[in-house]
Amino acid sequence: MSKTKNYCYGFCFLVSITINILFSINLYVGGGDKKQDESSVGLSWSTKAAAEAEYVASISCSGHGRAYLDGSIYEGEPICECYDCYVGADCAELSPGCAADANSGDPIFMEPFWMQNAADSAVVISGWHRMSYRYADYTTMSIELEKYIRKMHSIVGNAVTEGRYLVFGIGSTQLLNAAVYALSSENSSTPSNVLASIPFYSIYKAQTMFFNSENFQFEGDTNSWQSNNSTNNMDVVEFVTSPNNPDGELKTSVLGGKTIYDHAYFWPHFTPITGPSDHDLMIFTLSKLTGHAGTRFGWAVIKDKDVYEKVLNYISVADLGISKDTQLRVLKLLKKAVEGDGKPIFEFAYNKMRDRWERLSSVFSKSTRFSIQQRHPLHCNFFNETRLPSPAYAWVKCEREEESDCGAVLEAGNIKGRSGSIFSAKDRYVRLSLIKSQDDFELLLQRLTELVSLENSGVETM
Amino acid sequence: MSKTKNYCYGFCFLVSITINILFSINLYVGGGDKKQDESSVGLSWSTKAAAEAEYVASISCSGHGRAYLDGSIYEGEPICECYDCYVGADCAELSPGCAADANSGDPIFMEPFWMQNAADSAVVISGWHRMSYRYADYTTMSIELEKYIRKMHSIVGNAVTEGRYLVFGIGSTQLLNAAVYALSSENSSTPSNVLASIPFYSIYKAQTMFFNSENFQFEGDTNSWQSNNSTNNMDVVEFVTSPNNPDGELKTSVLGGKTIYDHAYFWPHFTPITGPSDHDLMIFTLSKLTGHAGTRFGWAVIKDKDVYEKVLNYISVADLGISKDTQLRVLKLLKKAVEGDGKPIFEFAYNKMRDRWERLSSVFSKSTRFSIQQRHPLHCNFFNETRLPSPAYAWVKCEREEESDCGAVLEAGNIKGRSGSIFSAKDRYVRLSLIKSQDDFELLLQRLTELVSLENSGVETM
Repeated sequence: MSKTKNYCYGFCFLVSITINILFSINLYVGGGDKKQDESSVGLSWSTKAAAEAEYVASISCSGHGRAYLDGSIYEGEPICECYDCYVGADCAELSPGCAADANSGDPIFMEPFWMQNAADSAVVISGWHRMSYRYADYTTMSIELEKYIRKMHSIVGNAVTEGRYLVFGIGSTQLLNAAVYALSSENSSTPSNVLASIPFYSIYKAQTMFFNSENFQFEGDTNSWQSNNSTNNMDVVEFVTSPNNPDGELKTSVLGGKTIYDHAYFWPHFTPITGPSDHDLMIFTLSKLTGHAGTRFGWAVIKDKDVYEKVLNYISVADLGISKDTQLRVLKLLKKAVEGDGKPIFEFAYNKMRDRWERLSSVFSKSTRFSIQQRHPLHCNFFNETRLPSPAYAWVKCEREEESDCGAVLEAGNIKGRSGSIFSAKDRYVRLSLIKSQDDFELLLQRLTELVSLENSGVETM
Repeated sequence: MSKTKNYCYGFCFLVSITINILFSINLYVGGGDKKQDESSVGLSWSTKAAAEAEYVASISCSGHGRAYLDGSIYEGEPICECYDCYVGADCAELSPGCAADANSGDPIFMEPFWMQNAADSAVVISGWHRMSYRYADYTTMSIELEKYIRKMHSIVGNAVTEGRYLVFGIGSTQLLNAAVYALSSENSSTPSNVLASIPFYSIYKAQTMFFNSENFQFEGDTNSWQSNNSTNNMDVVEFVTSPNNPDGELKTSVLGGKTIYDHAYFWPHFTPITGPSDHDLMIFTLSKLTGHAGTRFGWAVIKDKDVYEKVLNYISVADLGISKDTQLRVLKLLKKAVEGDGKPIFEFAYNKMRDRWERLSSVFSKSTRFSIQQRHPLHCNFFNETRLPSPAYAWVKCEREEESDCGAVLEAGNIKGRSGSIFSAKDRYVRLSLIKSQDDFELLLQRLTELVSLENSGVETM
């Protein structure tokens, strides 16, 4: 490699030229009755950052990787970070025999939407932006951002937010635990019982056990608990995940006590929106709405003022609030997302998910060894059409009696999934993520096709 | 007000013109042996965001307020958010009789440094920046950022980081609690005892009590505990805050057991750096280094691998990591901060603090009613000079026997401080913040001067 210092030569020169031209053009555009020197502005201090960002974005990684402002540097120059299974300086080579990784819920399927809408979704953060702990109203949450979150729910029609309180958190993750603290008994001699219905998202159990509070204890599955406890002990905090992670089912409370509705996936690209959710405590996350998992931003919609104050207090004691930089970026993304009443973003996302499900269903329809969850059409108020759900995950079952470790069966076929036991279910089930990048999905489909064709040819691995 | 729509007319036109000119100029600057179409870039998609940021920054708020991209909007136009005690559309009017608020530790004294270094500290975040939960190396922490944090410690000489692990957190706040979990007993029948030395930062107690874990319990002051417990129970987790909040003292461990060193204020603008801290678990925060409290970013420097993994696990279970947007911004800020081996930023910050302390000391030197903490000169390795410390807070004592509620005495003089009891000390003490904006400091000094002059004139309030 002989790229040494090209970056600085080319790049620094570019920045310098850009700034000089912009200064000499001296763009002054005033407007109306405002004083010229106040309302007008020529691009100056932001051009260096803009040039840096555009330079990095222009580095070609063959569509199979990305260079980032904070990414890897080689001899002073930002270089490509290749996606899974791709290698080489420009990520052009597919690594032969690489496993299809369908484990994580990384929502990279949305990335093309944001690349197509680059100008409307970029944000410039000045060095002095929001240095204080608090906004001007002494809160740690942006009022403007709250407005756009409410607007998003109103457009989509997936949650009642009128007269409800909002609290922001570090992803939905932090809010799940904040909600458990807020709903639990404060009498430590009788801790509240935290439950969920199998199969459930593993973090509910992991968090509740990790924090090991005297206020609550994890009691596992709602159905088992109900049959063992009748009505003797109703101090329960129940997680209801709807649509469910891993299987996409629309769920309701089993126990009917205090309930945390995890609505991470309750958006039109994953499920028909049959009406607004109207529960006491609902949790959403940006990750599964716009695809920005790395931003770590979620929110809770809360009916009761006392619970709201407890959740707010949790955030304050744990972290003194959420990054202002993050809040600014989320605001910019949501401003774009609500444009056209959300039609552009949700059509993009829904079309992606529908296409993936159609191709996936076609593969599984040829198999008797593997099955996936049934999907049932429902009327979607948002799209005003009856549609099949297109869940974020396939919940795969190995149908053969002897193949009780389905993860191992898929692994032998070069596919990485998340085993059923992680969701407190049987290992006969495996979750496969359908929301990763197009490359990841194509490889997954290829490996699944190979596996199913082996089944039909009679030559099988494992 | 008749500003209606000027914002959109002027602003949208500006953005459109800027983009057109930039496209027609079609800046192409190649370099060396790279292909022209890869290394070159013309500003395009980032100009809209750049123009928005510069427009908002250009709104005049008389130096007593600020307009923000995510700030208040009036009739479609961003408006000034005035600092405390200032009012009016452009924040030009001082509200008569307004109290000097010296309560919070908001480090706004650093804001002018970042405004003076606007071009080097701005960052552009693209809509598709780091959507994944993880970086390319499957961690949730930026390697580049870690490098700059280590570089900063190496330049300043305030902490040993070679061979140590780093973990990022949501401010130091989150890491304080993560450290308590990591160092506590996992045997719930004998919870660890969490202690600190009076006067101490209130969040240690608040967090430990709030999470109410079976693994630990808050036991208050180290000295009281020591005299009551001899050596019977050494399962302790001790917070040592050095320099101390509220009084700026350099502290060491009292109990000599497991210790969390909170080094939030261990930077050359607050205290002479006599040598690198070399403890097992040290916690730092961006807030008191660069002044970006709103960014919520801190880090722990950890010697033991087992403890490191436990702190990392806490962050993962609590939040699935730290915002990638935040990490990108922190990287940009630290790149600027380490320039010139840190001399520009620390000289700016130290000069501010020294000036404030000189003026403050002058006022208190005329008083017998109030005193502040003694300061002792030490050799600062970073500045290579013997200097007085210039702590973030004045720790004020009301000297008159009858004035046992010093907060109330100051309140009557129109000064808001933080009462000693919040630090588990006596209310005869009050903490006054010296790191807020220049406006805040000027008002504080004015009110203190009035209070002390009343004392000398014999006419006193309260």
